[in-house]
Amino acid sequence: MTGTYRSIAQGVRAAIVRGAWRPGDRLLSSRKLAEREGVSLPTALQALRVLEAEGFIVARPRSGYFVASRRSSEPTRSQPPATAQPVTIASLARTLFKSQSMDLIPLGAALPDPSWLPTSGLQRALASAARRIGGQAQSYSVPPGRSDLRGQLARRAAQWGARVGPDDFLITAGETQAMRIALRVTCRPGDVVAIESPCYFGVLLLLESMGLRALELPTDPRNGLDVEQLEKALHRRRIAAVVAAPTAQNPLGATMPADQKRRLVKLLARNNILLIEDDVYGDLTGGEPRSPPCKAYDETGIVLYCSSVSKTLAPGWRLGWICGGRFHDAVIQARLEETLAGSPLLEAALAEYLRGADYERHLRRFRTRIEAAVRAVATRAEVSFPAGTRIGRPHDGFLLWVELPAGLNALEIHALALAEGISLSPGHLFSPQSRFSHHLRLNCANEITPAFLGAVERIGQILNNLEN
Amino acid sequence: MTGTYRSIAQGVRAAIVRGAWRPGDRLLSSRKLAEREGVSLPTALQALRVLEAEGFIVARPRSGYFVASRRSSEPTRSQPPATAQPVTIASLARTLFKSQSMDLIPLGAALPDPSWLPTSGLQRALASAARRIGGQAQSYSVPPGRSDLRGQLARRAAQWGARVGPDDFLITAGETQAMRIALRVTCRPGDVVAIESPCYFGVLLLLESMGLRALELPTDPRNGLDVEQLEKALHRRRIAAVVAAPTAQNPLGATMPADQKRRLVKLLARNNILLIEDDVYGDLTGGEPRSPPCKAYDETGIVLYCSSVSKTLAPGWRLGWICGGRFHDAVIQARLEETLAGSPLLEAALAEYLRGADYERHLRRFRTRIEAAVRAVATRAEVSFPAGTRIGRPHDGFLLWVELPAGLNALEIHALALAEGISLSPGHLFSPQSRFSHHLRLNCANEITPAFLGAVERIGQILNNLEN
Repeated sequence: MTGTYRSIAQGVRAAIVRGAWRPGDRLLSSRKLAEREGVSLPTALQALRVLEAEGFIVARPRSGYFVASRRSSEPTRSQPPATAQPVTIASLARTLFKSQSMDLIPLGAALPDPSWLPTSGLQRALASAARRIGGQAQSYSVPPGRSDLRGQLARRAAQWGARVGPDDFLITAGETQAMRIALRVTCRPGDVVAIESPCYFGVLLLLESMGLRALELPTDPRNGLDVEQLEKALHRRRIAAVVAAPTAQNPLGATMPADQKRRLVKLLARNNILLIEDDVYGDLTGGEPRSPPCKAYDETGIVLYCSSVSKTLAPGWRLGWICGGRFHDAVIQARLEETLAGSPLLEAALAEYLRGADYERHLRRFRTRIEAAVRAVATRAEVSFPAGTRIGRPHDGFLLWVELPAGLNALEIHALALAEGISLSPGHLFSPQSRFSHHLRLNCANEITPAFLGAVERIGQILNNLEN
Repeated sequence: MTGTYRSIAQGVRAAIVRGAWRPGDRLLSSRKLAEREGVSLPTALQALRVLEAEGFIVARPRSGYFVASRRSSEPTRSQPPATAQPVTIASLARTLFKSQSMDLIPLGAALPDPSWLPTSGLQRALASAARRIGGQAQSYSVPPGRSDLRGQLARRAAQWGARVGPDDFLITAGETQAMRIALRVTCRPGDVVAIESPCYFGVLLLLESMGLRALELPTDPRNGLDVEQLEKALHRRRIAAVVAAPTAQNPLGATMPADQKRRLVKLLARNNILLIEDDVYGDLTGGEPRSPPCKAYDETGIVLYCSSVSKTLAPGWRLGWICGGRFHDAVIQARLEETLAGSPLLEAALAEYLRGADYERHLRRFRTRIEAAVRAVATRAEVSFPAGTRIGRPHDGFLLWVELPAGLNALEIHALALAEGISLSPGHLFSPQSRFSHHLRLNCANEITPAFLGAVERIGQILNNLEN
């Protein structure tokens, strides 16, 4: 019977998330809900109490249950300095990563709940690939990587209208290697690279390790990179490349509108500047077909397109790829120097998995779960974080960017949360000089359990204690 | 019945390889052999003809069969220039790698015959690891990598007397990444790195891509790096690090005697110079326990020890490791920047496989096969390559270094062999400025089939045609 109230709650939650019920709408009464679902009144009430605890609905005395509205403001638009700066976050990152462990409540690392990933389907693909390629599994997959996988990637890219074929892809050891190679072949130490603000710390670590300077660009929490500001910056100084995640940006969850993506590519092509595009969360955009990446608008090969399955399917397979555009030959050469070769078995298995309709089916379920989880974390944060907190409304993806009242220190919060078995990402990691010191990034891609939402509430208590 | 003559040939071959029968020894007559093995005379004769065709034995009229002696001289000791040079082989390497394909007779890439690798045991380990770690397989393995694997590596290192524990290891995406990281954290562009001559081209590609200069050191074809010459070089100039494969060196197959390894470590420790040790072929040394790497003698943490299972077990798993010594913290940081994380499933599966006695059992069989194959390729080359050819007698490993008569051009030979479906590695790849232009490296780790030995003979015909 315990499944029943859960499935009712799940149905109502999904209706709210997909907008069938809007903030302020009155829900069915508990009695009507029980009738409709064919359950007892206590069961219906239990479902409603769960939704209330999660922050999806509120009870008003003598009026019934209403869909909760999100009242908090969104994080302010970043106003980064106009000058390029060296990056100095590596030693902080190293300290923070050391504290990671499997046993924490995972609001830190941007990784989906393993139970949300199609483990058995992936295992079947592995077994089938092992049979199919036989002894080749024991060899190297030399750059550019197996043609069966590149073929599948090209097929998917064709869906979003890219002008790329199998030979335009190079398989890499995850997306970090793809981005690293893209920077290596296009920039030299001391060069200025334009980035989003806030920016994924993996990009910052790459810039720091390669001696590149970062020019942060204002980035809208929902619509992403400000192309106009970029254009102005181009008048002022030489930029070697732009690194950006135009779709489901990390940490904001912003997705640039298609016309802005097109405008960005045009602007860069006109100025002969490269775009290193991070599309690792791209498949998480809703709609069929998905929102195309900038690569779809690239007519001159200036976009070095990087992605992987680490955020959507199989983080542990460490499979990424890059379309190097006009730098593709250099990109293949660089891959040889980085890790020489790849794993034929994993590449063949991913090709196998992508061949059928499983991935699209998985993505649809995955997106529904993500939307509910982001909403649940955000609403729980709204009711428990101190007044003045600004909570993101990500356009896509499973990350939540939170701006706390100024004066709170995210590193202190991180340490206190860690002591209670909760991980989170302090804002310090998301700019070259740790400017976002009262910001947090929360990973929401987790099963909505009382323990998980309780951890969000516990962070709220920590914040309130620090405020007083 | 076809198995019978093959198994007799295999028994005789093994006896010759392990030295039970020495060059010049007279074999049993065909009649006695047939009696001893309990087979017909034609079967015994067929076995002897196979061994004769492979070059292991020679028939002398009216005297019977004798163990063939290897008459050719060994390659001369290299006499590299005394000055450091920039490396310029990348564009050549790129061109050559492009011509690789699965369908060639594989005398090129240094990879063992897939049928020699314990595929089913590895698959069992994969399946068992998948059950054991469950959802963790869908996460990242963050640096330094899974502790179960690091524990197994430390256990093995203890066998050769290393002063390292699980926390001294970092798992990497293959050994190339380990070496790359080692160079990154210890050298800066323009630095001079001392290397062996000839040197594995993977090391040269790393130096070139990082703007490091190479100082080649004389290296004995059987006893490896000349420590005395290194000592002299240290008086003349500043060296940032030494990169060497003291055990089963690629391409020579040289292994430094233990006293020379000890002397090398002492010399470098005294001068505060780092040793980046490539031990990827180390487990191929005979004897129990195996010949210890230099890391076994490292008391001050100056040895950055790099290895992997790519040459002995599972090339396609792309798992390597590094013990970073006093640079270990920086090494972990660099790994984060290179590929962020590793594959928990593959790491757990390798830990599983290494736990039992399977690996040692596999290595014993593998070494026997390698010794027979090296011997077979070498003897076939002796009878078919032109006079004046010098053929290596590798101390360990499965590579054969061949010095051809001066005037022959290895790139031309490579192109002609490729046209006949045969791959090989031209000597040009093994020095910073392509000095070894009349040398070849042959990969011998292949089942001794008529097609495989026929390819060696075909290379001989190509050489003879070019000579005339």
